[in-house]
Amino acid sequence: MRKKNNLKICLTPDNFSNYHISDHTLVVVVDLLRATTVSSTAFHYGIKEIIPVQGVDKAREYFGKENHIVAAERNAMALEGFDYGNSPFQYMNDNIKGKNLVLTTTNGTHAINIARKYKVITASFINIDAVLDFLISSSKDVLILCSGWKGVFNLEDSLFAGCLANRLLLSTYFETNCDSVLASSRLYHQSKDNMFNYLSESAHRKRLKSLNMERDTKFCLTPTIKSSIIPTLIGEKLVRG
Amino acid sequence: MRKKNNLKICLTPDNFSNYHISDHTLVVVVDLLRATTVSSTAFHYGIKEIIPVQGVDKAREYFGKENHIVAAERNAMALEGFDYGNSPFQYMNDNIKGKNLVLTTTNGTHAINIARKYKVITASFINIDAVLDFLISSSKDVLILCSGWKGVFNLEDSLFAGCLANRLLLSTYFETNCDSVLASSRLYHQSKDNMFNYLSESAHRKRLKSLNMERDTKFCLTPTIKSSIIPTLIGEKLVRG
Repeated sequence: MRKKNNLKICLTPDNFSNYHISDHTLVVVVDLLRATTVSSTAFHYGIKEIIPVQGVDKAREYFGKENHIVAAERNAMALEGFDYGNSPFQYMNDNIKGKNLVLTTTNGTHAINIARKYKVITASFINIDAVLDFLISSSKDVLILCSGWKGVFNLEDSLFAGCLANRLLLSTYFETNCDSVLASSRLYHQSKDNMFNYLSESAHRKRLKSLNMERDTKFCLTPTIKSSIIPTLIGEKLVRG
Repeated sequence: MRKKNNLKICLTPDNFSNYHISDHTLVVVVDLLRATTVSSTAFHYGIKEIIPVQGVDKAREYFGKENHIVAAERNAMALEGFDYGNSPFQYMNDNIKGKNLVLTTTNGTHAINIARKYKVITASFINIDAVLDFLISSSKDVLILCSGWKGVFNLEDSLFAGCLANRLLLSTYFETNCDSVLASSRLYHQSKDNMFNYLSESAHRKRLKSLNMERDTKFCLTPTIKSSIIPTLIGEKLVRG
């Protein structure tokens, strides 16, 4: 019988160093609203590679570089002077095909950065089926890393993490002894019939609503596209896995 | 109309520095299984003051000091050579009356320590009614700090935090924009009819069960004593507030 792999959820990047991670662990980064949904969308519409960078200045270094699109978001808003922001709808165009995307966001790129010495992939509801199959077939331990908001817990990433965890545990190839998995999975069960409503009091849904970005929220929770691409960190870049 | 105070929950000590805390904030430390339940119990049975210390060596410095009881716990077990451990039942005796308790535990004393430059009280189901009244009458912002387990989330502290948060919000003197409050409060609602069963898969309940300490768990979740004492940090000591 195949040995069961271990499953954990880390609710915010600041807790990451407290988890015991080995070469046998895959880290799944989630920033549902919106960076990892944007990554899935951009790959789906033909982006070749994504270069997640932490600082805005670092992103600016790519200005004018051939075949590169430079995108920056802080506090949910696109930054002035950049080609793109953090809305998935901006990436639904043929113009991005074959190009590289340089992306800096408030939380998602930070989470990728702190995990970069391990094997990292990114997940969203766009590629959840592919991620699930990949994790099951990889026979590795899994740590789902929620990006949170500026170092604190957010509800939407834990709902996604709970959904993915729940499906991994149903596969019977995983086991867990992690309270974050229990909590996230139970919150997901409460929310699954109407995640948009369930999040109505959550900080980031309210933030996006106040910025007139509810269309983004709806898309991230119930995307109209599916993708089998698994953004995979190789060196400094996310490539099409 | 009285201005509403802000309510937040910090799910683990490692996230604490990401919260904006002012002199107008009360920090409520929770380590339900078992340090803050032990604190409530010890005060109820007559302990004069509690000195929470982080290191075992620091605790040893109090060996032989008149009128002091020295207690140490690591990984749920009492350490050899110490008078007491971290079981509330050990403190239910007349011998502790009027003495000072020096206490070091795996998580709770760490949480108290990182918050010590702010106004700190500790809470458990033993003193929850008194804590609630105190927080409502204080007209201050409240941050409930869960002690977690070695830097990671635990379910039981978030259930207690959710219960307290829920009652504070019902009072209408508090408002929140904190996703940890939403999540903890919803988890508490799921659990409240049978918290012991709800925690059956949680890491620390299983740990205490394996050490034959389920009696402690039951007492911490549904204590048989009530106390109006609010352990309050003054300098290095918790005093009877």
